Amino acid sequence: MTRPIITLTTDFGLKDQYVAEMKAVILRICPEATIVDISHQVDKFNVKMGAFILAAASAYFPKGTIHVAIVDPEVGTKRRAVCIETKHARYLGPDNGLLILAAKAQGIMHAYEIKNKKLMLPKVSNTFHGRDIFSSVAAHLANGSSPLAFGPEVDQLVIPEFAGVVKRKDMLIGEVIHVDDFGNIVTNIREKELGKVRVGKQVKLRFKEAEATMNFCMAYGGVEAGKPLALVGSHNFLEISINQGNASRVFKAKSGDKVTVYRS
Amino acid sequence: MTRPIITLTTDFGLKDQYVAEMKAVILRICPEATIVDISHQVDKFNVKMGAFILAAASAYFPKGTIHVAIVDPEVGTKRRAVCIETKHARYLGPDNGLLILAAKAQGIMHAYEIKNKKLMLPKVSNTFHGRDIFSSVAAHLANGSSPLAFGPEVDQLVIPEFAGVVKRKDMLIGEVIHVDDFGNIVTNIREKELGKVRVGKQVKLRFKEAEATMNFCMAYGGVEAGKPLALVGSHNFLEISINQGNASRVFKAKSGDKVTVYRS
Amino acid sequence: MTRPIITLTTDFGLKDQYVAEMKAVILRICPEATIVDISHQVDKFNVKMGAFILAAASAYFPKGTIHVAIVDPEVGTKRRAVCIETKHARYLGPDNGLLILAAKAQGIMHAYEIKNKKLMLPKVSNTFHGRDIFSSVAAHLANGSSPLAFGPEVDQLVIPEFAGVVKRKDMLIGEVIHVDDFGNIVTNIREKELGKVRVGKQVKLRFKEAEATMNFCMAYGGVEAGKPLALVGSHNFLEISINQGNASRVFKAKSGDKVTVYRS
Repeated sequence: MTRPIITLTTDFGLKDQYVAEMKAVILRICPEATIVDISHQVDKFNVKMGAFILAAASAYFPKGTIHVAIVDPEVGTKRRAVCIETKHARYLGPDNGLLILAAKAQGIMHAYEIKNKKLMLPKVSNTFHGRDIFSSVAAHLANGSSPLAFGPEVDQLVIPEFAGVVKRKDMLIGEVIHVDDFGNIVTNIREKELGKVRVGKQVKLRFKEAEATMNFCMAYGGVEAGKPLALVGSHNFLEISINQGNASRVFKAKSGDKVTVYRS
Repeated sequence: MTRPIITLTTDFGLKDQYVAEMKAVILRICPEATIVDISHQVDKFNVKMGAFILAAASAYFPKGTIHVAIVDPEVGTKRRAVCIETKHARYLGPDNGLLILAAKAQGIMHAYEIKNKKLMLPKVSNTFHGRDIFSSVAAHLANGSSPLAFGPEVDQLVIPEFAGVVKRKDMLIGEVIHVDDFGNIVTNIREKELGKVRVGKQVKLRFKEAEATMNFCMAYGGVEAGKPLALVGSHNFLEISINQGNASRVFKAKSGDKVTVYRS
Repeated sequence: MTRPIITLTTDFGLKDQYVAEMKAVILRICPEATIVDISHQVDKFNVKMGAFILAAASAYFPKGTIHVAIVDPEVGTKRRAVCIETKHARYLGPDNGLLILAAKAQGIMHAYEIKNKKLMLPKVSNTFHGRDIFSSVAAHLANGSSPLAFGPEVDQLVIPEFAGVVKRKDMLIGEVIHVDDFGNIVTNIREKELGKVRVGKQVKLRFKEAEATMNFCMAYGGVEAGKPLALVGSHNFLEISINQGNASRVFKAKSGDKVTVYRS
């Protein structure tokens, strides 16, 4: 039988032992689990960035994968802990918008509040629900526990305010949702919203502190090294990049900044 | 049968191939091992930080886990390599205090010097015992080798000088043993030593370069964002934090600094 | 039966979800794979550093291991994707020199261009062949696919220009091929090329911006803390180090710099 897959997405970093404690709890309850790190370097408390990373990665995991995600500035307060079931996967984490992009893309079937103390560690701290609640419950889920046993069904999940795209006659106004490790600027503008902006054309973009006209390409190598380009990244969002360079640094763009695209 | 778990705690970082070489050696000898990284970002040569991280994490791993830890400024000199058996786990590493907090908390049963060259790689370098000795021996241990075959029993392990807590009539003087990735300041003062300092009260703390009075809380969210708080962290030590902020930066506190807590 | 091992070496970093997407694709096709990270922190686009790290690590992995390596500034252009078979392992990656040090050290038997679209993801992006091509093909290889099915045999692999060592009467002129996370400076000068430079002797070295005479030692601890030393690292290359310090910072040496060693 295939071993269950549990993924982890957090803002805990890799220096401390927090992630290892989660894995220890999982392996104690479900020794057969295959644990995969999605990222532990989500910017601290940046729920939006965590939501993007989880959504981007979860599309590629096998059916039945269990995703645990913790970017949780309100841990220990009364925010809910939830389990969301989609047609493809199960998501566990705080009810603060972190799971919603990934879950919505797969079609949400049910959501349950996690309240059943029998599925948590015997002593639940106020500071580390990732270990004491979510890892424990995820491992029980991998062992075959039903989400029906977790707690009451949730009608209304928290929906984050991640900005939508504004469409004007000759421009699109979107937002930087992520800057990747290469300095590529990922926006929330999807391929289909780009309209007449096409490969081979030039495109004019305005950032908060910079403005530039650049080629719209199929690949990073479509312009010379050091030159800027626009492309549709592997996640179907408009991305601005500098071939072999760092676009975020050059255009001083960071997560949350507005981006304006002028249709040519 | 359950697969054996081998954990790794080092100051090797993740850029170089050193950790992968250790895993390669383990998998060559014990292909069934589940390898879990605790941390590879212990500050270089900081045995105390490694000891804290290993002790904190190892409490959560299943019985029988094999822990390999390498923070080893004296590699290649005559410091001993040891295997410590506790009621719960086995620890392999240099005899420099790195293993002692974790092992003591679980009750040390036996300790052996690692001298048996048959359990090491055929060629042992002077610079990388993590790979040539410890990974190899750990994998043989996972395969069922007895620690009795490793070498002579060790009577006196090296005990590090990590400072104890000084108790005066109206104050406790402790030490920062760790600053986590969120900037939370972990001290060596345990919950039971706090005495009358209680949740809901205010507590006054003095660091090397700063002094502050703050609420004693149950969770990070117990004060407004940006405000300092004291709490007992998930490892039963007194921790000083700033809700959604970085306490280490604000109070200029780092590993090894003295901390004074005034009883109210 | 032993589970197949697939290793990953990239310059993708650990913040983004790219590495997790590769693992997701592998586990979807070959759920039994044991995936081992060699490094994801190769300096961006630094093919030489990736080649060194892969070569150093791959020597320790079990026979039959599949190595996927992606440092690929030309992704999406017409550079070839290749699979190299050696007596010991299989290597998948771009044909840009990244695989060659590792593969040559083990004896290259065959190399194939990867062109068979049936073994790739249904939709291949222009930007992320690590996921869409290499992870998918590696997982099929782990499942038993033959490299013969990948594409035409390659006669002439790209050979990188990593500088050789110049030997003069009383000096060796080499190059820094890697600076590790401890600041140790790894050169491309092999032990056997050192000639009369011997343990216990002093050795004089000239870097681009510094010159120093130091002891040639067996181990880092062979000199006092803070003192420089030369030694043969665990990979048989001449390494310059400062005991418990950072040689790269002190000697201002970085990857690609020339190093001159004066025979005494």
